[in-house]
Amino acid sequence: MVDKVLQVFDEEGADYEHKVLSAHRNPDELQRYIQETNARIFVAVAGLSAALPGVIASNTEKPVIGVPVSAKLGGLDALLSIVQMPPGVPVACVGIDSGENAARLALRILLSKR
Amino acid sequence: MVDKVLQVFDEEGADYEHKVLSAHRNPDELQRYIQETNARIFVAVAGLSAALPGVIASNTEKPVIGVPVSAKLGGLDALLSIVQMPPGVPVACVGIDSGENAARLALRILLSKR
Amino acid sequence: MVDKVLQVFDEEGADYEHKVLSAHRNPDELQRYIQETNARIFVAVAGLSAALPGVIASNTEKPVIGVPVSAKLGGLDALLSIVQMPPGVPVACVGIDSGENAARLALRILLSKR
Amino acid sequence: MVDKVLQVFDEEGADYEHKVLSAHRNPDELQRYIQETNARIFVAVAGLSAALPGVIASNTEKPVIGVPVSAKLGGLDALLSIVQMPPGVPVACVGIDSGENAARLALRILLSKR
Amino acid sequence: MVDKVLQVFDEEGADYEHKVLSAHRNPDELQRYIQETNARIFVAVAGLSAALPGVIASNTEKPVIGVPVSAKLGGLDALLSIVQMPPGVPVACVGIDSGENAARLALRILLSKR
Amino acid sequence: MVDKVLQVFDEEGADYEHKVLSAHRNPDELQRYIQETNARIFVAVAGLSAALPGVIASNTEKPVIGVPVSAKLGGLDALLSIVQMPPGVPVACVGIDSGENAARLALRILLSKR
Amino acid sequence: MVDKVLQVFDEEGADYEHKVLSAHRNPDELQRYIQETNARIFVAVAGLSAALPGVIASNTEKPVIGVPVSAKLGGLDALLSIVQMPPGVPVACVGIDSGENAARLALRILLSKR
Amino acid sequence: MVDKVLQVFDEEGADYEHKVLSAHRNPDELQRYIQETNARIFVAVAGLSAALPGVIASNTEKPVIGVPVSAKLGGLDALLSIVQMPPGVPVACVGIDSGENAARLALRILLSKR
Repeated sequence: MVDKVLQVFDEEGADYEHKVLSAHRNPDELQRYIQETNARIFVAVAGLSAALPGVIASNTEKPVIGVPVSAKLGGLDALLSIVQMPPGVPVACVGIDSGENAARLALRILLSKR
Repeated sequence: MVDKVLQVFDEEGADYEHKVLSAHRNPDELQRYIQETNARIFVAVAGLSAALPGVIASNTEKPVIGVPVSAKLGGLDALLSIVQMPPGVPVACVGIDSGENAARLALRILLSKR
Repeated sequence: MVDKVLQVFDEEGADYEHKVLSAHRNPDELQRYIQETNARIFVAVAGLSAALPGVIASNTEKPVIGVPVSAKLGGLDALLSIVQMPPGVPVACVGIDSGENAARLALRILLSKR
Repeated sequence: MVDKVLQVFDEEGADYEHKVLSAHRNPDELQRYIQETNARIFVAVAGLSAALPGVIASNTEKPVIGVPVSAKLGGLDALLSIVQMPPGVPVACVGIDSGENAARLALRILLSKR
Repeated sequence: MVDKVLQVFDEEGADYEHKVLSAHRNPDELQRYIQETNARIFVAVAGLSAALPGVIASNTEKPVIGVPVSAKLGGLDALLSIVQMPPGVPVACVGIDSGENAARLALRILLSKR
Repeated sequence: MVDKVLQVFDEEGADYEHKVLSAHRNPDELQRYIQETNARIFVAVAGLSAALPGVIASNTEKPVIGVPVSAKLGGLDALLSIVQMPPGVPVACVGIDSGENAARLALRILLSKR
Repeated sequence: MVDKVLQVFDEEGADYEHKVLSAHRNPDELQRYIQETNARIFVAVAGLSAALPGVIASNTEKPVIGVPVSAKLGGLDALLSIVQMPPGVPVACVGIDSGENAARLALRILLSKR
Repeated sequence: MVDKVLQVFDEEGADYEHKVLSAHRNPDELQRYIQETNARIFVAVAGLSAALPGVIASNTEKPVIGVPVSAKLGGLDALLSIVQMPPGVPVACVGIDSGENAARLALRILLSKR
């Protein structure tokens, strides 16, 4: 799924950083990265109990896009984990395994800024 | 759900237009509105077979946020209808009945533009 | 699934037009086709957030049959997107991947007209 | 749900017969009625293991519309029982508790005959 | 699944008749068979909208065992169609694809008669 | 649900014993009861992780009927816990909250013995 | 649900601290608390996209118990968010709304230490 | 799944006993083992109607960890059977097929005892 995100960014000539960080396994490094990066938007790809997009959204005021990955239960677990955020911490969820739409949504947000 | 969206926009001092249009019942009027409005972002609230966010996204290049409403099956029908978009037509889906997060996501997108 | 629909029509000697149009990717062309065609009934095959049957039904007074395709979640997303239409915009939904029954339902409707 | 079907038929001036028959509890009477009626189309409302629409469809060549009723599991049981018909025995399924759309679909089929 | 049922009956030395009949495609022949057979118990194997066990149960006072087959949605459609019978028409449902347990349940019922 | 089972048995003049025992909370007492009772058939009513019918079936060769009760998730948890038994330990599952059908199934089994 | 946890701890004479912290809304305070507390075990109660138990488990080596709360979809979203943790970050999940079992599981773990 | 549990225990140098016992097929032997073993914690792996963890938990005061295995329905049946325990009989459920997390949870519990 990450590959698909990057492929669309490459095709469209968008700048990006690609990091492999887990909300559950690299919490400190993730925290630091969120604070230090100049990225204007986050695209987080995660499966199972996919906490990554929500954890990012709770540590930044920038837009966060989440991509649920189908590892178990057809991806229903990741979809619900990403989309059912509590009030005040919004995540923009796209379809299961839909890396392409995550990238295209990011581009819509970035292009609409001009 | 729409009330909650507007309440957050009012609290945060955001400008907005509020229209009641259905993808299924007012297709022509919807089409016209999408073309004519100066809105920089769309927030679409819909239940059941919630086609509205996707239909808007297929008629504009601006960001579209979808809010699934729980009318039947706890809102699972609306959630899947909104989030499972085909490649190339992205919709930013928030949680079931989560009008607040739709508004907050919209504000993140708009504020990140400055 | 489309192949199965056409195969039944061929076997039964029914006239048909076959078009590849997406509610999300070809909205204008779809609109035009719905207005111009002489078809007496529509059979729409779609997966994921399967808006096609509903969008057709909202632009015609003719009967519309929808076939949900299993792309993700075993087709549950497409099934709910097609069948859970709002009041006033009816779609006749058949089983997941059931192109054959869509064609047979169409024939029942057409034959009952004589 | 049946009331809603009849209300639409009354509003639109459509002729109809209203029978209370169960596929499971009145199999013989149901069989007889299917053979004897002059109805041009069937609308069957059923909940739980909703066999009625399918049983009618297997005993007639006329179009059959099924309305799943939400008695348990939000109506998911009735929806799947009605829509997941085996190849060769088509049923036109509408949304859960959607008596109105069943009637409107019936009218579309009947009106398209002229 | 049928093979597994028969294999257990063979192993246990139980007498049985094996018929291939569909509630939807052979309704008349099914009806006749139910009336004429000397079987003391029915084991019905069915997938999708699995009406067979319920239709048999509505035409006999003998015990009926249903086996849901996983054709779509992992067999959830067949499971709900078989198990969610309306009051007064009981079916004994076993697990998805569990032909073995259907046969063993039949044997328990038959042996308990002595 | 238990009340409904007993009501049908009372109406039909069937003898029964009524015990309140949990597979999880009274395992020893349950075990003893299964061995000592003269009952020819068991009807077990249980919710949540409904282990009772399966535990009885693993401790007897008599027929066991399970009734899933809707305590959470509409009863889907109890339904799957009761019906999805491993090979060799059959349980006859009826519909969610369907005490009536459990009793009627028991009567069919008992009456077929004569 | 929290009340039920505390009630069992009170009844059993267990020491505890009670904090209201959200993984999404108080990430820094949560982090600090996890590092500073002398608690030997964590019980985390959360609904929707219930990231709290997993985030705690990723910041401590102590046992973490999660209680999914039914806010939407009967609690299926919280259940899957809590239980479907990635390899290496274990959470002990109990039933939906089952504060009592969370407390009893904690006591089993603590008492087994002696 | 069992292999994965043992592999983690081997890597971490933990002592363990490995038994193959079914709640449904070896109830007496299981009961005896639970009473006689010196194990300080139980890890039970089970699929379908996964009664094993709950039955162990009802026969001991030690902590019990359950691992749902995906045999049917993606493991949803086993997950609900294991996690939805009645009040008073707690089971610590980990993710579907997640033998690794079961072992790691056991180690957290055991290590926290020192």
